[in-house]
Amino acid sequence: MTASAVGAGTTVAVCQVALAVGRPEENLARGLAALDRAAARGARVVVLPELLRSGYVFESAEEARALAEPLDGPTTAALTAAARRHGLVVAAGLAERADDGTLRNSAVLVDPTGVRTVYRKVHLWDRESEFFVPGDQPPQVVETDLGRLALVICYDLEFPEWVRLVGLAGADLVCAPTNWPGPRRGGGERPIEVVQVQAGAAANRMFVAACDRTGTERGVEWVAGSAIVGPDGYPLAEAEAGGAEQVLLADCRLAEARDKRVSARNHVHADRRPALYGPLTG
Amino acid sequence: MTASAVGAGTTVAVCQVALAVGRPEENLARGLAALDRAAARGARVVVLPELLRSGYVFESAEEARALAEPLDGPTTAALTAAARRHGLVVAAGLAERADDGTLRNSAVLVDPTGVRTVYRKVHLWDRESEFFVPGDQPPQVVETDLGRLALVICYDLEFPEWVRLVGLAGADLVCAPTNWPGPRRGGGERPIEVVQVQAGAAANRMFVAACDRTGTERGVEWVAGSAIVGPDGYPLAEAEAGGAEQVLLADCRLAEARDKRVSARNHVHADRRPALYGPLTG
Repeated sequence: MTASAVGAGTTVAVCQVALAVGRPEENLARGLAALDRAAARGARVVVLPELLRSGYVFESAEEARALAEPLDGPTTAALTAAARRHGLVVAAGLAERADDGTLRNSAVLVDPTGVRTVYRKVHLWDRESEFFVPGDQPPQVVETDLGRLALVICYDLEFPEWVRLVGLAGADLVCAPTNWPGPRRGGGERPIEVVQVQAGAAANRMFVAACDRTGTERGVEWVAGSAIVGPDGYPLAEAEAGGAEQVLLADCRLAEARDKRVSARNHVHADRRPALYGPLTG
Repeated sequence: MTASAVGAGTTVAVCQVALAVGRPEENLARGLAALDRAAARGARVVVLPELLRSGYVFESAEEARALAEPLDGPTTAALTAAARRHGLVVAAGLAERADDGTLRNSAVLVDPTGVRTVYRKVHLWDRESEFFVPGDQPPQVVETDLGRLALVICYDLEFPEWVRLVGLAGADLVCAPTNWPGPRRGGGERPIEVVQVQAGAAANRMFVAACDRTGTERGVEWVAGSAIVGPDGYPLAEAEAGGAEQVLLADCRLAEARDKRVSARNHVHADRRPALYGPLTG
């Protein structure tokens, strides 16, 4: 892979697209077209939404099963081809169907060599538990030419323990496919999900790229709150209010995430008092 | 204690004042005067800054020791008198000197019966470790007529594990005396410390009242970012930019913090996966 052409860092993109449950080919094509646009603008890491190909608002377990796919199915095949075509890394969600027929709300990180890691969402939102088996493994941190990348999915971001685990494991950039259900908070406020992304990034001095959806699906209005947040906790790019499809790009100096110092004597990880955190695991 | 006169909830106040290290009587009087103003406006819980009487920017361990006081010293005496006078609960920070001469960056929660709990800051900021021994106990959650209150201090808020522990212990309202060093982020952005307070409140569906300082002290400019945040993570009251001394008040229906549901099937605490959080305590 070649270095980013934009700035001295890595150009990270999130592709906030509109999807429709039950139209898998159309959804996948929509995500790939946005990825192509991001690549044309220099993106070296591209994040796409949760459950990209299937859509999200299933009517029944049967529908979810019919729209799910094996890990080596059409989504990863298409993402791998795109990663090769552009020489980049891509993260996206998929409804994963295991050989035993169980479904998981998964995400893959793909580079030109293929799937580098798969992550299964651990914290399930609302009706997801009717369709999916929750994951039971922490995200792996994957060493790439660009830096150390990891995956979490949507509601996982609202568990600061989980974001901390990824930070402690050494992630420079957390790629987070999401489908945040709205409505969006008005009054000029950021969606609270974005506030939580900001806090998680700052608490761990790492980058987080959250790719949300836009539009509505069977009555669910998506927040359309995609954001790329830097290690100081402030957005480097964020979706404009109004919810249009959009590709956000940010020049991320991912090496900055290796520096956890916040004062001459303070370090966001070394200052932790893990011996006192026992009740978190009880 | 009588119920709040404002709205159906409890009026919570934070008193953002300017203090000066080395002027203990003046500092304490300034805090008490602000408390009186808050009480006159109906406050039933009043939060004052970290290290209220001593000030913060010590030149030396000797100066810190000279400005510190025993737990039953002038600060708690004055706060207890004020709590009795107004029939309220007050939280404030003090430089605590133990019998063995060690100092701690502490906070007390005081009601008309006296000190209900003392908390010693666990996560020390910058030069504090030259002056203070860190605490090694979690905050206690104190049952009051108004609800369940707990204390944390300043940099503690930047450790989501610590805020989570307090949430899991059942706090309705976290009272957080702080001295956030600036400069304040411009561009219409909230201080990142406030963003972290927002995320902690939302992740635990509880109220957080953070009382910061204003002004400068020996070259340290305070953020002046005081805020009272509700369980949805949005500020109910926050300091105006510009850093004036100000009393913030918010009508807090503290009982709302007992409801941790965020969807028909989701609950911010029950949805945790503590068996997977082991690395947090390692």
